[in-house]
Amino acid sequence: MIKPKLLKGTKDYLPLEVSRREHIFSVIKSIYKKYGYEGIETPVIEYAETLLGKYGEEGEKLTYNFKDHGDRHIALRYDLTVPFARCFVMNVHELGIPFKKYQIGRVWRADKPQKARLREFYQCDVDIIGSESLVSEAELGAIAYEVLSTLKFKNFHIRYNSRTLINQILQKFEIAEENKVKAIQTIDKLDKIGPEKVIELLEPICNKAGDLMEYIRTEDPNSLELVQENPEIQEFQKYSQMYKVPDKHLKLDLTLARGLDYYTGIVFEFEIPEFPAGSIGSGGRYANLASTFTKENYSGVGISFGFERVYLAMEELNLFDEIDINTQILLTLFDENSIKDTIELRKILLDKGYSVELYLKPKDKLSKQLKYADKKGIPYVIIYGPDEISQGLVTLKDLKKGTQKQIKINDLEIT
Amino acid sequence: MIKPKLLKGTKDYLPLEVSRREHIFSVIKSIYKKYGYEGIETPVIEYAETLLGKYGEEGEKLTYNFKDHGDRHIALRYDLTVPFARCFVMNVHELGIPFKKYQIGRVWRADKPQKARLREFYQCDVDIIGSESLVSEAELGAIAYEVLSTLKFKNFHIRYNSRTLINQILQKFEIAEENKVKAIQTIDKLDKIGPEKVIELLEPICNKAGDLMEYIRTEDPNSLELVQENPEIQEFQKYSQMYKVPDKHLKLDLTLARGLDYYTGIVFEFEIPEFPAGSIGSGGRYANLASTFTKENYSGVGISFGFERVYLAMEELNLFDEIDINTQILLTLFDENSIKDTIELRKILLDKGYSVELYLKPKDKLSKQLKYADKKGIPYVIIYGPDEISQGLVTLKDLKKGTQKQIKINDLEIT
Repeated sequence: MIKPKLLKGTKDYLPLEVSRREHIFSVIKSIYKKYGYEGIETPVIEYAETLLGKYGEEGEKLTYNFKDHGDRHIALRYDLTVPFARCFVMNVHELGIPFKKYQIGRVWRADKPQKARLREFYQCDVDIIGSESLVSEAELGAIAYEVLSTLKFKNFHIRYNSRTLINQILQKFEIAEENKVKAIQTIDKLDKIGPEKVIELLEPICNKAGDLMEYIRTEDPNSLELVQENPEIQEFQKYSQMYKVPDKHLKLDLTLARGLDYYTGIVFEFEIPEFPAGSIGSGGRYANLASTFTKENYSGVGISFGFERVYLAMEELNLFDEIDINTQILLTLFDENSIKDTIELRKILLDKGYSVELYLKPKDKLSKQLKYADKKGIPYVIIYGPDEISQGLVTLKDLKKGTQKQIKINDLEIT
Repeated sequence: MIKPKLLKGTKDYLPLEVSRREHIFSVIKSIYKKYGYEGIETPVIEYAETLLGKYGEEGEKLTYNFKDHGDRHIALRYDLTVPFARCFVMNVHELGIPFKKYQIGRVWRADKPQKARLREFYQCDVDIIGSESLVSEAELGAIAYEVLSTLKFKNFHIRYNSRTLINQILQKFEIAEENKVKAIQTIDKLDKIGPEKVIELLEPICNKAGDLMEYIRTEDPNSLELVQENPEIQEFQKYSQMYKVPDKHLKLDLTLARGLDYYTGIVFEFEIPEFPAGSIGSGGRYANLASTFTKENYSGVGISFGFERVYLAMEELNLFDEIDINTQILLTLFDENSIKDTIELRKILLDKGYSVELYLKPKDKLSKQLKYADKKGIPYVIIYGPDEISQGLVTLKDLKKGTQKQIKINDLEIT
């Protein structure tokens, strides 16, 4: 006998959680579709060389990879962006340009498990390939706004910044070209390690680390000359207004760097201030992502929601309400002799549009069947014994109100 | 530069296919739910010891397994049943008994790839745990019937047999207890290798192999004494009538064995005669599946659709019709100056309930934008240039009919 156990960083999802998860998936997917984005699905397993070398040193270490039965070096996908780039290059003639796609799927990271950080989790991506216009970034911001407000978040920020602006700032503070990546990665740790520590780490490559820190943490970044002269930021702001994303949800933040190597333009992070466990989504423009697969130059921009974090944030803020119940009626089995009539009644109830569970152990006592409904949160129970059957009636119990009545099958109506 | 390529036995799914796949998923899931089954989700990666040793020798070889970064021996799930048994044992107090669940998810097998046999594919499981009543088997048969007829299959068989009946038949033909598993596995190959070859393989363990073969291939198995006396078969047939599954879709087949080691009672296979590439689903009762995880005795019964085969069968039989189109309107961008008005029009169209894609390259010519809509199969295109804007009109092109007209925004109506 084996002791049943889960791998660290993985989870079982039980019915209540699954139905809440489906609610979130369906909100996200329907908004992506409404904006005209189309679904794509790529494999979970890829050649390791397809995935490795795209995520920087840290991502590299976190990618599950192994030899398969044919001694091929394969890997589990680390995100959905790189597999999509591979898929896009292979299918560009069928897909056309520009191409707007969404993909919702699981990814794996051999990370240190902790709250809001699993080894196996869902990402919900939406991307545009082949359009350089900043309308794209604004549309993605509008989608993020619509997703988060539809999920009933009240207080959230779409934080944004620009990699070209970051570069200009690093130049202004005299950081050498070869040190820029290191500087970006260091600034990216600001939330975790605080400004003093970032300054300390920057000092070896920047004489004005303190001034740099002060500059990027300025209260009103829109007043800065470099910002006012940055066309990316200006166009993004202009188009976002057209998309009517409320100002209070948009937050230019010069400290936002995003560690991933492949971003080149606007970068995003979605933050819920009451949920400090980390950002619930992110994204940005990647001008050269497909360049490992093709000489063609496809510029892309995309955002992604970290599904499990969205879920946790909704749970902590009590945003789940009456979306939980699947089954409306438990149809009890009075005894073995009433099975035939009960199955027929089930059909009538289904045809009325109710979701009905037939209790499948005819030998269990009625009290046990009622307890079962209660435990499952099924709101109504129908009893259909010989008396009811002979009179064309059912006994309907409302478990929430604790009431019961006998009514004609045809008159049955529940909400 | 890397040549982008897919691992053998894996696939990319492009938008048309994804939207058809979503249609099938949603039919299957909604029927499972309607019958009162609840969703479960388990991890893709499990401790190897959880999965290995459950699927017989062949399944063992086909399970992807490897050492992770912490030197743990882990595996990708081979099916959804064993992970569910593990999950059920760990959560039995919360889930309760009986428990009716569905799970739809990907599984992996290091199989030799061929048509209708991928290395990565979806299974759609529905199971009942903790009920011994044959009503359960009949309900699952009814679900299979409803799924297949809702997907518009006209001609299909729910083939069934009983492991207890098979045992009785093997006994009748004097096959020793210790040879029964081998006999079942051999009979299971009948469809692939034909009766002569099966007889040849059975002869070393059965003196009456020819008679056995004739017996299980008899035209009217319901006339056989062993069948008439088998309570499983009799009860399953009785309850299936109550569920009103049409007789022509139910087919008792004594040659059906199902190779998997864990079945103990009724076994199923779903077959589309016009689709010879293999069964599109299967299942059965497994009285002892959780026994590797617990001393408690939980009897389960379940069925599963092989998603990709259902898809292939629907494709070959032309069962996909108008379910393909996501986006109804392509909203073109006349020029950079009209972006603001166009984004506002987009909002009006969305509020009317249409799914709208805004073309995101303002510099592309109108003819290119029209080609794009045509290629994507988007049925309507709206043009909104300076003339239209100043008059509050739009130009609506119907790409199917090849017509176009100018109408007021408020009067716009498409189907």
